[in-house]
Amino acid sequence: MMNAIELLQKKMQGSCQCALITSDIDRRYFTQMKSSAGTLVVFADAAYLIIDFRYIEKAKKTAKGCQTLLQRSGSGLYDQINELCAEHGVSVVSVQANCMTLAEAAVLSKKLDSKLDTSSALSDIITQIRIEKFPEEIQSITAAQRIAERGFEHILGFICEGRTEREIQLELDHYMLSHGAEALSFDTIALSGANTSLPHGVPCDKPVQNGEFVLLDFGAVVNGYHSDMTRTAAVGQPSEKMRAVYDTVLKAQLAALDKARAGITGAELDAAARDVIKNAGYGECFGHSLGHGVGMEIHEPPNASQNSKITLTEGMTVTVEPGIYIEGEFGVRIEDLVVIKNDGCENITKALKELIVL
Amino acid sequence: MMNAIELLQKKMQGSCQCALITSDIDRRYFTQMKSSAGTLVVFADAAYLIIDFRYIEKAKKTAKGCQTLLQRSGSGLYDQINELCAEHGVSVVSVQANCMTLAEAAVLSKKLDSKLDTSSALSDIITQIRIEKFPEEIQSITAAQRIAERGFEHILGFICEGRTEREIQLELDHYMLSHGAEALSFDTIALSGANTSLPHGVPCDKPVQNGEFVLLDFGAVVNGYHSDMTRTAAVGQPSEKMRAVYDTVLKAQLAALDKARAGITGAELDAAARDVIKNAGYGECFGHSLGHGVGMEIHEPPNASQNSKITLTEGMTVTVEPGIYIEGEFGVRIEDLVVIKNDGCENITKALKELIVL
Repeated sequence: MMNAIELLQKKMQGSCQCALITSDIDRRYFTQMKSSAGTLVVFADAAYLIIDFRYIEKAKKTAKGCQTLLQRSGSGLYDQINELCAEHGVSVVSVQANCMTLAEAAVLSKKLDSKLDTSSALSDIITQIRIEKFPEEIQSITAAQRIAERGFEHILGFICEGRTEREIQLELDHYMLSHGAEALSFDTIALSGANTSLPHGVPCDKPVQNGEFVLLDFGAVVNGYHSDMTRTAAVGQPSEKMRAVYDTVLKAQLAALDKARAGITGAELDAAARDVIKNAGYGECFGHSLGHGVGMEIHEPPNASQNSKITLTEGMTVTVEPGIYIEGEFGVRIEDLVVIKNDGCENITKALKELIVL
Repeated sequence: MMNAIELLQKKMQGSCQCALITSDIDRRYFTQMKSSAGTLVVFADAAYLIIDFRYIEKAKKTAKGCQTLLQRSGSGLYDQINELCAEHGVSVVSVQANCMTLAEAAVLSKKLDSKLDTSSALSDIITQIRIEKFPEEIQSITAAQRIAERGFEHILGFICEGRTEREIQLELDHYMLSHGAEALSFDTIALSGANTSLPHGVPCDKPVQNGEFVLLDFGAVVNGYHSDMTRTAAVGQPSEKMRAVYDTVLKAQLAALDKARAGITGAELDAAARDVIKNAGYGECFGHSLGHGVGMEIHEPPNASQNSKITLTEGMTVTVEPGIYIEGEFGVRIEDLVVIKNDGCENITKALKELIVL
């Protein structure tokens, strides 16, 4: 199997003579080395990581698929890129339009001998490569998810009447960070009662009360890869309406999981869950899209929304997270993360999703 | 006193007809409302915050110095900007070159009737405004620093032989987050023994041993404003060399604090500390610059480095953080955050900085 840089070189043919990769995340993706600085320069037949003295030793030992060069001080970097371009007979350098700023491009235009290609060509190629995960990437996402699940088990023993949303958030975060997570995937969402009806609410000092839902949306990071899961549990006996809504969301989620496979579009996946919720009369209460890809970023392509025309293919990741939010009352969301396969999907999320009553 | 938007309007005269402010941080700075989306459009005589349905109610109540407009769906935003430009007789729209990506600028170029000014004019104006803090900003930074200091007191009681760097980091983080910090200023640095010689080391599972230094670099966020402090403490009796190096760093820091005032340059401030360290024979062991501004971002202008030509003025913040790092042995850094005044500086950091032996 080709590695990521070889894949890039193959896809560059015809549209891109030289790729200048400057984003921290993409540099880590291609070289498998984390750093906060450095420039990856990729030609059809060679790749160079130009990196400063702080990282050079580490880069020599760990950066994959490229030669490492010590970055010269001051504006020496531009001379180095110019020399490499001359050596490889290149006259156009493509930059990442989706993350390079206008100011950065202005400096490069001035300093480089080559013409700058500021179109989205390179960004599009990188998006295409990153959207289908390698087995090693799935392993890291899965390892992150296992940590999140242990965090979920732990927090179920912590949640009780009187605990505040913020206390629950901080306890869950502390658990994940002290059990192998290198970071949190995003600011953990821990909401209770009427606050659960806010899809992106922020935990506050409200204490959990008897008979309320607690909604948790959270994830861990391992090797730069994120996990993402949501569970909604009840503290004390929920009302009949709460139970009915929970069942509807779960049915919607199972319907989408059943449908998930290579060949369908993001919109079709969204519809599988949305139709169940609409048929139950809650169509207006599901105001966000069904899901998104997850990898080195918490939100990546593909999108699984009502307008998503992308066709899912083997190796893509996508969250399946339908929800019903009833303003002023409560909300329910259940989220798993799956890997698309030709004959279905692999559900990375193993946590229980039948209604838990604490 | 003019508010931030009025200051912007004044500085726009002659160089900028219409400012399109799209960065989350700058939008929060000017409107005093946090959001993850929205566009602030500023003309010479009016300012509009165009924001989607999720934030519109909050914006109406809390956004300062501007009218709020509900963002139309789809690409309606561009029509809204075009209509406002027509209404205000504007034909050129300035964007933030230091944070707008090439891809975002390409879309705007296509959708807007006005010509796009992609120069650094607007970015430069905003940098100029943000670099001198309003009293309310200093209040928030100070509130954040008070939380960090309580965290420091707490962690001194937690650090002991056998605790790992990672445990110390997580305990300090948890304390700050559960005592009023809305976030951490950055990934807390907690290092011990030989690891303290790495200015940007990452906490690991190494336990603290008797006779070692523990170096802590950390901060809290309040109202979007960051604090930043570093302290180095000894666990058990330090060696004579450790004491001597500590004293040198402290003397260097006090020399810079004594020098800090409006009218000197960043380079002069850096030199005040660096000269003390050079004279003690450790010039080669102070490999980073003396300090940086702190505000809504953890690293902002002004820079206090050997090459910094910027003249400090009243209201700027700057960290004063000299260090000596002896590879394979130990490192010491002591960091306070000060506000520049015409007749000196106000030191926001109140934590003890004489050598603490735990």
